[in-house]
Amino acid sequence: MNQATDLGMLIMQRANALARCTETPGMLTRTYLTSAHGDAAALLAQWMREAGMNVRRDAVGNVIGRYDGIAPDAPALLTGSHFDTVRNAGKFDGNLGILLPIACVAEWHRQDRRFPFAIEVIGFAEEEGVRFKATLLGSRALAGTFDMSALDRRDEQGLAMREAMTAAGLDAAALPQAAYRRDRALAYMEVHIEQGPVLLDEDLAIGVVTAISGASRYLVTVTGLAGHAGTVPMGLRRDAAMAAAEIGLHIERRCSGSPGLVGTVGQLDVPNGAANVIPGKAIFTVDIRAETDEVRLAAVHDVLEEMQRIAARRRVTLDVSKTHEVHSVPCAPWLQNQLERAISGDGLPVRRLPSGAGHDAMAMAALTDVAMLFVRCGNGGISHHPDESMTADDARTAARIFSRFVENFAKP
Amino acid sequence: MNQATDLGMLIMQRANALARCTETPGMLTRTYLTSAHGDAAALLAQWMREAGMNVRRDAVGNVIGRYDGIAPDAPALLTGSHFDTVRNAGKFDGNLGILLPIACVAEWHRQDRRFPFAIEVIGFAEEEGVRFKATLLGSRALAGTFDMSALDRRDEQGLAMREAMTAAGLDAAALPQAAYRRDRALAYMEVHIEQGPVLLDEDLAIGVVTAISGASRYLVTVTGLAGHAGTVPMGLRRDAAMAAAEIGLHIERRCSGSPGLVGTVGQLDVPNGAANVIPGKAIFTVDIRAETDEVRLAAVHDVLEEMQRIAARRRVTLDVSKTHEVHSVPCAPWLQNQLERAISGDGLPVRRLPSGAGHDAMAMAALTDVAMLFVRCGNGGISHHPDESMTADDARTAARIFSRFVENFAKP
Repeated sequence: MNQATDLGMLIMQRANALARCTETPGMLTRTYLTSAHGDAAALLAQWMREAGMNVRRDAVGNVIGRYDGIAPDAPALLTGSHFDTVRNAGKFDGNLGILLPIACVAEWHRQDRRFPFAIEVIGFAEEEGVRFKATLLGSRALAGTFDMSALDRRDEQGLAMREAMTAAGLDAAALPQAAYRRDRALAYMEVHIEQGPVLLDEDLAIGVVTAISGASRYLVTVTGLAGHAGTVPMGLRRDAAMAAAEIGLHIERRCSGSPGLVGTVGQLDVPNGAANVIPGKAIFTVDIRAETDEVRLAAVHDVLEEMQRIAARRRVTLDVSKTHEVHSVPCAPWLQNQLERAISGDGLPVRRLPSGAGHDAMAMAALTDVAMLFVRCGNGGISHHPDESMTADDARTAARIFSRFVENFAKP
Repeated sequence: MNQATDLGMLIMQRANALARCTETPGMLTRTYLTSAHGDAAALLAQWMREAGMNVRRDAVGNVIGRYDGIAPDAPALLTGSHFDTVRNAGKFDGNLGILLPIACVAEWHRQDRRFPFAIEVIGFAEEEGVRFKATLLGSRALAGTFDMSALDRRDEQGLAMREAMTAAGLDAAALPQAAYRRDRALAYMEVHIEQGPVLLDEDLAIGVVTAISGASRYLVTVTGLAGHAGTVPMGLRRDAAMAAAEIGLHIERRCSGSPGLVGTVGQLDVPNGAANVIPGKAIFTVDIRAETDEVRLAAVHDVLEEMQRIAARRRVTLDVSKTHEVHSVPCAPWLQNQLERAISGDGLPVRRLPSGAGHDAMAMAALTDVAMLFVRCGNGGISHHPDESMTADDARTAARIFSRFVENFAKP
């Protein structure tokens, strides 16, 4: 038996190597079915093969490596994440969740160690939705929930997804066959950077995801009455911007103090505002997310009600439209428990936290029970940005926890 | 002696006729030295002559009608306002203050009535600053405070003010001679629509202006930290928009409850805001006005201090720059008293109020004591807009008060 590889260093080196598969020199942009995307798929397939896996590519372009169990036809523990990126991306979002299990499998392969189940590492071809404005294409194809009408979506150059797939050597007609057989999947466990500051703030390398938060999103237009900033006394105003400000601060207050609940006014604008004109119109967005749908819907209810009270008191009118709503996806308790045992067994503290961002695990939950292991980000938790970072130490810790989880994995 | 004219109807008819002098068919736009502006000057001169006045045009283009006193060389009570307009303007802003005294003088002329002082009605050629981005040109020329460097300012077509004056037959070199002789001016009294909702709200036709409010204006950029709307817990945020919202509501609260004090956030923007991104930057303006400089400066001081406290608590930084500051111009108490006696003598209640907007009287205060009579606007007090309105009844009332004021005018 050779000396054990430093998995932390290996993962960091491969993240750097994979980041060189980019559409735009000097930054990382790798969208679905571009040649950079094809290069990344080939690199992942090569590393999977070196780790002792059989590699296949499905109709949507997912790269799937299978490390057989003791019995060659054993059902599989699935793991993975996506290898497409946003524009001007970081190196770890998605990619870590493929590179880390490949490195762990390689180690078992080196030790000639097999389990009562197979391990399938999936590089999902598309999650971010950048090119065709449709997200989670890879995991939806695997979970059997791919919306075939998405094939007609066109990229900015006018190329339809169906045509791009053909050009990349994929067979769109075979998409239904990409769906994983439900009785062959034991569970899905995804390793991902946190993309937030919680673990960093608490000086913890890893955390167990409790749920992928649901989200409600609204677009609100406030109509008041424009007026001269000098001539309309305060008591006679119907200031749309101050109504928006008061609603924004209510959202902030209502969503504070409940762990896992967040509320954001991301857009806020006074169209054609001028310094000497009382705003007659203001437009803002509301984004409310929570670990559980109960908590989210209660907050949304309160915010919508208080919004109307503020509007009535300020004699402005509101146009409120819901633009987005997704439900919470809980991580399976039995998987969380096994992850927590792996962490405690390693002597580390267990930190549970929800994921406020969406992940492939959301789509995979339609197929099987899911779990996620979060790894600490540096730089304040920034992600979707070249400053996205993590350390080799944390990669090493996460690989150790992932290995311990797999080595002790048992479906109840 | 003929039957007395209905001055209210006459003023409304002439406001309509004057509004037909416009650069843009279908709306009223009459900027400095355009041919529409020349047409309006000619119409005003004609009405002044019909009212028994000697008419002259000075170097800046002001149209000045003199109604001699009992002694032909008597010093004059000055009155008037501007006949330039903003783009897509209302008919009464400025124009009323010229048309109303012309109508009153015509009535005295009909009655062959003269006073121990002359009356000069001035149609100021420029106040709004639309064409050359310099305001109060007409009243500054008359007050002797015209900034000669303004002659080099260019309009959007690149034409310098000096060239536009020459083309309009005016002699820029003679501008210093447009300054009124200080010992020939007894006072300046301007009639103007309120351009606000105070009189309308209190069901009053007219009001006495106490002062033209001073103003302080700031541009503020808030820098926080952008983040993912789902992954950054409320307690770890540095949300620039919520800091701006809290500052805006503080300004609103601090400027409420003190009569004559107003505070406005007219521009408020989150640049490149997205629904799922915590705002890292917000930009807003602050405009604070008050009847007295003491009240304004105290409010500005408190707002600037509280702004920094809010920023420190929210861990955001502020870039604050002053963009504008003008001092308050008080109306002379003796003129206010005489106006109030004219109003009480007519059986009407006296309402004192500051002017939150600037007027020619601001510039005229450098020459002589000033006063202003406000006339109620309709439509919520809207101005600088085609919906700007007033009634013939109110014009009639204002003409009666103006006449009574002049007939009893005496410089103490």
